[in-house]
Order: sequence, then C-alpha cells, then structure tokens
Amino acid sequence: MRNPQLNDAGELTHLLSTDGLPREVITQILDTASSFLEISTRDVKKVPLLRGKSVFNLFFENSTRTRTTFEIAAKRLSADVINLDVSRSSTAKGETLLDTIDNLVAMHADMFVVRHASSGAPYLIAEHLQRVGRDDVHVVNAGDGRHAHPTQGLLDMFTIRHYKQDFSQLTVAIVGDILHSRVARSDLHALAALGTGEVRAVGPQTLLPSALDKMGVRVCHDLATGLRDADVIIMLRLQNERMNGALLPSAREYFHCYGLTPAMLALAKPDAIVMHPGPMNRGVEIDSEVADGPQAVILPQVTFGIAVRMAVMSILAGN
Amino acid sequence: MRNPQLNDAGELTHLLSTDGLPREVITQILDTASSFLEISTRDVKKVPLLRGKSVFNLFFENSTRTRTTFEIAAKRLSADVINLDVSRSSTAKGETLLDTIDNLVAMHADMFVVRHASSGAPYLIAEHLQRVGRDDVHVVNAGDGRHAHPTQGLLDMFTIRHYKQDFSQLTVAIVGDILHSRVARSDLHALAALGTGEVRAVGPQTLLPSALDKMGVRVCHDLATGLRDADVIIMLRLQNERMNGALLPSAREYFHCYGLTPAMLALAKPDAIVMHPGPMNRGVEIDSEVADGPQAVILPQVTFGIAVRMAVMSILAGN
Amino acid sequence: MRNPQLNDAGELTHLLSTDGLPREVITQILDTASSFLEISTRDVKKVPLLRGKSVFNLFFENSTRTRTTFEIAAKRLSADVINLDVSRSSTAKGETLLDTIDNLVAMHADMFVVRHASSGAPYLIAEHLQRVGRDDVHVVNAGDGRHAHPTQGLLDMFTIRHYKQDFSQLTVAIVGDILHSRVARSDLHALAALGTGEVRAVGPQTLLPSALDKMGVRVCHDLATGLRDADVIIMLRLQNERMNGALLPSAREYFHCYGLTPAMLALAKPDAIVMHPGPMNRGVEIDSEVADGPQAVILPQVTFGIAVRMAVMSILAGN
Repeated sequence: MRNPQLNDAGELTHLLSTDGLPREVITQILDTASSFLEISTRDVKKVPLLRGKSVFNLFFENSTRTRTTFEIAAKRLSADVINLDVSRSSTAKGETLLDTIDNLVAMHADMFVVRHASSGAPYLIAEHLQRVGRDDVHVVNAGDGRHAHPTQGLLDMFTIRHYKQDFSQLTVAIVGDILHSRVARSDLHALAALGTGEVRAVGPQTLLPSALDKMGVRVCHDLATGLRDADVIIMLRLQNERMNGALLPSAREYFHCYGLTPAMLALAKPDAIVMHPGPMNRGVEIDSEVADGPQAVILPQVTFGIAVRMAVMSILAGN
Repeated sequence: MRNPQLNDAGELTHLLSTDGLPREVITQILDTASSFLEISTRDVKKVPLLRGKSVFNLFFENSTRTRTTFEIAAKRLSADVINLDVSRSSTAKGETLLDTIDNLVAMHADMFVVRHASSGAPYLIAEHLQRVGRDDVHVVNAGDGRHAHPTQGLLDMFTIRHYKQDFSQLTVAIVGDILHSRVARSDLHALAALGTGEVRAVGPQTLLPSALDKMGVRVCHDLATGLRDADVIIMLRLQNERMNGALLPSAREYFHCYGLTPAMLALAKPDAIVMHPGPMNRGVEIDSEVADGPQAVILPQVTFGIAVRMAVMSILAGN
Repeated sequence: MRNPQLNDAGELTHLLSTDGLPREVITQILDTASSFLEISTRDVKKVPLLRGKSVFNLFFENSTRTRTTFEIAAKRLSADVINLDVSRSSTAKGETLLDTIDNLVAMHADMFVVRHASSGAPYLIAEHLQRVGRDDVHVVNAGDGRHAHPTQGLLDMFTIRHYKQDFSQLTVAIVGDILHSRVARSDLHALAALGTGEVRAVGPQTLLPSALDKMGVRVCHDLATGLRDADVIIMLRLQNERMNGALLPSAREYFHCYGLTPAMLALAKPDAIVMHPGPMNRGVEIDSEVADGPQAVILPQVTFGIAVRMAVMSILAGN
C-alpha cells in the first residue's frame, strides 16, 4: 500500500504521522524550518509563499494554543486563514465529516489543519481526497485522539537537533503518561527514524504501553534510572483527568515519584536539555525551578514550532 | 415606493431578496460571477477589488457554513473581514439592533452580511442606512427567517444557467418543505424573473404555502408527477425539527414519499440535474446514490456560490 | 519607581492607564490620532505601519464591541490580528497567565491587547515583559476590572478637544455610576492631566467613590446642579446588575433622578456636547431624544476611538 503521506514521487503530500515518515522527509522539514526561523525575527514577519491560498483550521476538538500556532504560521506565509468552529457547524447538524470536506474543497480550500478526538480522522480525510482525485488539497494532522501529533514530534526533533546535533550519540528520556500521549508516540517514531542512540520510556506501569520494548525503547519504572546520563529529557503533561482515577493515586504522589526536580535533573548529563510540549502543570510533572531554569528549552520549543509548521505548510503547498 | 435594493440610478445598493430584483440586475450578477469563477482556480486566488474595505459578518443566527462562504468571498476580494459573535455582543446586553449598526457605521464599516432569525431584519438595517443618508454602506441578506436567502437563490440560478442555458425552455421542480424554506422562496422569485418555462412545487400539503398557484407555480403533491420530464430538480433540506412534529409522520415516511431515489430520478429527463442547498440529510430527502451520482451538481453549486457572493460584494462596493 | 508605561527615554512602551500619563504623551497620542482620522475615510482604509506584526487580542472578559474596535484598528494598520478565546484556552486548563504570555512571546507576538476582570492584570503582564527583558513587546490595557480603560479615556479627550479645544476653560460633568466605572476613572485622570477648568462628578452617594474631592473634583448629588453651565456631559452606562440591588432602588427611579432628558440638558451651556461610552441603556441613563439629538457626539466618539487606537498601536510599535 502506498504511504498515504507521500505522492508517487515520494514527496510529502499530507502530514499525518511521524510513523512511516522517511528520514529524508523529516530532514527536509527540519532544514526548511531552519530557514524560516529567521523570518519570525524580522521587522516584517511575512513571506508570500502561501499568498492567495485558503487554509482551513478544522478543530473538532478545542485547542486554542495549537490552533493559534497554525494560524500564526499560515498568516506569516501570507495565507488566508479560516477558522471553523466545527462544534457549531453543519457537522453538528448531522452532515457527515466527508460531506463537510467535499463542501470546503468545492470552495477551493488548499489545506486542512485537522484536530480530532478520534484517532485516524485526518487519515480518513486524506484517503477521501485521494479517492476523489484531489492531490492539490493537503491535510495536516494537528492531533488525533491518542494517535499522533506529528508537528509536535517534528518540533521536538528540531529542538533536539538545534541543541545536540548528532542523534546517534544521544540518550533521550521521555517521562510520564506515554500510554495516552500522542506527543510521545510521535516523538518515538521520529527518534527511531533519526537513529537515536538510546530512547527510554519512564513512568509507572499503568501509564506505559506494552509494546515499547518491541520498538527498541528501554522501559524504566524508576525515574532516577531513567534520567541517569540522559542528554535530552522530554516531560509529558499529566492530563488532569488521570490524576484522581484508577491509574494514579494522586497528583502529589505522582510528583513525588515522577516529578522533575533539580535533584532528579542532576542525575542527567550536566548539559542535558529539558523539554515539555506545554501547557505545564507546575508542581505535578515538573518543578518550577526546573521549568524556569537554564536547562529548560520549553519556550524555544514554541518558537521552533512556528518555524516547523511554516515549513510543513510551505512544503505541502509547493508539492 | 422606491425599491429598497436599488439606488436612484437603478443600480444594486443592497441585496435583500430576489423578490423585485429586475432581470437585468440578476443577469449582471450572474455575468460578473462568471468572470470570478476563474479567480478561485488561480494559484493566487485574490483580486484587490475590496482592498481596505471592512466587511462585517453579523450572524444573529448561527451558520458556520454560510458565514464561511461569505468570509472566503470577501477575503478573495482582499477585504478586511470582521466576524461578530453577535449572540455574545452588546445587542445581548440590551443595545438595540440599530444602535449596533450605527456604531459599526461609525467605525467606517463598508458592508454588512446579515443573517437573522427574524424576517425583515436586513430590510430594517437597509432602511435605517437610507434614513441616515449612508448610501455608501451596503447590506447583504444572508438569510432572514423564512423570508429570503437571495445569494442562495442567485447561485441556484447560476447553476441552472451553467448547465441548461435558456430558462424559457426549462421545467424546474422544487421538492420538499417549501413552506418553511427561504431558499425555495428566493428560487421561485428568481425563476419567475428569468422567465422559466414551468416551475413545479412538490411536497405534502402541510409543507406547501397556499399562494403558489397565484405565482404561476404548478403544485404537485405526488413526487412522480412532479419529477416527470423535469430538467432541473431542486431538493430542499428537511429541517430536523419538522420530522417528528404535527406536519410530518416521520423521516422514514417522508423518504418513502418524497425522497429522491434513482428510480424517482429516472422519471425526469435523462440529462436532468439534481441540486440541493446543503447540508444534506442523506436518506431523508435524498438517497446517497443520487447525491453522489453523475446528475448531482451539489458541489458545483458550492463553487458557484463563492463566485456569486464575490460578484454581489464587488457590484455593491462599486456602486 | 519607573513609570511602567514609559521606557528610559520617556517614550510610551505600554498603555496601561491614563493615571501617570504625562500631558505630552497624551497630546502626542491625540495629535497622531488626528492624522489617522483621515485614513478611515479613504477608499482603501489601510496603511502598512504594522505590516507583519502580530497583535494578540487577549480578552479574558468578553467584550465583542471593544475587541472589534481594536481588531479594526490593527487591521487598518495592516497587522496580523489573532483573537484568542481565552476562556476556552490553556489558561482554563490551569496554565498560569504568565506562562500563556511567555508562550505567545515565544511565538513572536508584538503586542497584547488585554481585557481582564481583575484590576492590574495588564500591569502584571507589562512588569513580566520588563523582567524577562522584552521591551519590544507591548501591552495595551483594553479594560481591567474597575481600574482603567485608557483608550476610552483618550478617545473621550480626543472628542472634547475636537469640539471644545481649550481644556482650561471647560466645565466637564461626569454623570452616573462613577464608583464602578473604569471609564470614569480614566477620564478623571486624563482631564486632570490636560488641566481641565472644572470637573464635576454627579450621582447618588452610593455610586460615587469617596476620594473625589482630594482629586479636585466637585461632587454633586443633584443632577441639575451638576449640569448647570457645563460644556461637556459624559453620561456613564448603568450596569444592569446595579439596577435592582442594594445600591439603587430601580431603573425607573434612577432615570427620574439622573437620566439625561432634554429639560435637564437645557441647564447646560447651549453648545454643550453629550458623550456616552456605549452601549447605551435608553430610558435608563439617557433619554432617546437626547441620545439622538444634535448635541450628542456619541457616534463621533466611536469614529475617534478607531483613530485613537490606531495612534496608540502605531506609537507603541514605533518605539
């Protein structure tokens, strides 16, 4: 079966997942993002690459922050951005998802940025576009269920490459609720594609998926073991709904076992970087002293995220 | 009384209804829309006709889809578009509709796109603007109560003209809940103005208005009779709230009597086109096989709708 | 302590309050606004002064009208405007206000327009930006709690100067619920800075703050006394929530004592102007005959408000 993200020439036509994304495509995105990083520091932060293109933000699940990053990226590329409040739209009136897509394509949409609570929704849209022969319309997955959040995965890779260069020499620890995290899943696939030296998944048994060892990931239930001599630490957000449930005793207990404190951070390499996809729960998964400390690169991640999203959009629009 | 849609020179100054719209004005809009059709297929889908103009979307009744079509049309004309969430605005704080309008005019609004649950609200605004001497500010009715939805009526005419050319030779069947449909009302007036050969209204007695025969419309309570040898079939959306009420036994029963199936469609001319204003209730008023079949022009309607709205806005801004 | 609104060169770097704003800065804003007034009457109502800048509307408290005025002002300066629905954003997920700000700064925000129910929130943001060394990011207070609404205060000054010129010769009466009004507070500070001849606060004891006399304001509990020979009358909106509470017997009673009727207006100078920040409660604080009469300058206030906001934004972006 053809990789649904690539066209016949092997070029990126949708961004759905970091799973199955060839290393060269990832590298192309990161290289393009490097060139965009400078634009956001200019006095006039705009390039005309998507001028006259219509980008639709289809957020079936609410996320002001992620929507904002895509909106900024698209506007800096000079696109026309249309935000659809999908929860109040025709889809709510019983229209099917694909009828909605067909309608927007008929309005000459060029790109859909899709966030959906159901895993696979962006795939469904991409497959439909292929079926109706519209290779000129592109889908970017902005997070689907527990499945994937590829632009977050790519901006994480951009961040690691920015600070650490050679992936093959690195030890990367991902800490927290990996089971429910589309960010972790996207990071794991991208880290594998880029040939990362050692990848560790750190968390309580109840929050780790079972197939990790088959992916070549080292599983650690103990935070100290997981962090020792790490070059990169990726902390995950603990969703509020997990904190008082069957999976976890309490937020305080979680912080005690898996919270990143200065003492714990000291176990990693002295020049280790600390990442977090945001928004942070200070005092739950991360101590404020670490979050605001010199090793944290959490705000640079946000800056890189705009450049990575501009890169993805401009590559899609160019193909 | 002066036609409230036209200025003293007989030019379009507001678009409020297809009722009373002279044939030449309708033709001017359709001809202008033809020229815009090409813009949406360009690489850079923009023309500077409304650059620096402020278009306000005033949707007192929520409709993401219709608002989106106007937003796209305005942005492709390079206008600044401001979406007002009117349900949360000063009007909700007890300010009158006309105070809101006066305020927006004081901010140098150029155009209001108005959707309102009350029939006549866009007229009220247009009359007020005339009273205060602001001929340079224009109103487009985007649907008012059960009264009118003139851009939908005009895009339907554009669609018919596109596929069928000469209206005088055509038989057009409008099927469904005509009584509550502002789309049907706008179509009926426009079809009359363009000298359509035969217009049929098809539906159960409870969903047809009483004055149809006085408008020269042929009333059919039987779908087969209504469709026989028709050139154009316009299916109407059955509002959910009608389905279990006093007017209709059930959605299943409705589909049995008035749903457009392949067998029913076969009664029309072999080259008949099938239209629907969307969003469709598949399996209620239309069978999916017809909706997705070769005679359906439902998605082209959407494409034409952008061009027609661009035409209306550019004509208004030019006058 | 350094004035948090000015940089070391004494130039405006944030607009937080009219309190402490030097007279020359106020005059600079009003003079700049005069030059912008003409732009909104042009055919193409746009200047490229903020092209490529990202302006974020952060409305923690809903206000469609005020947000719209800032959105129009920013778009006429060619900025990219991003509206954040903050009530649905990460802040709602427990992220702190300053984490949200840090994130948006990392996305290369240039300006924040902030409305917040808590007095001081815009100050907090401005202080934070100074602490992290980001003098290139600017805050405009669009209303914080009962504290300040400086762009409204400045547009009121613009209006008075437009119609009356020399402040030192004027008697200005502010009528209504001064205790809870950030507009009144911003007007009082600006009127003082501009050396207004006589300022009167008119209202029932329960709706006037206690420290007015220390500010040199003459307190009048009787409307007739308050209006006599006034040049300028600023009516305040009576918030609905005040009308049936402990502070006021009823809206009807209030109108009887403090509503501006034609008879009351006749006590002021014959060329007195009547102002109101909107939205008006007709028949509560102001009679429709006055609101729509020749002495009302309520709609010009709205027009001037766009020019004043363009002036503030362009001065901030230039510094």
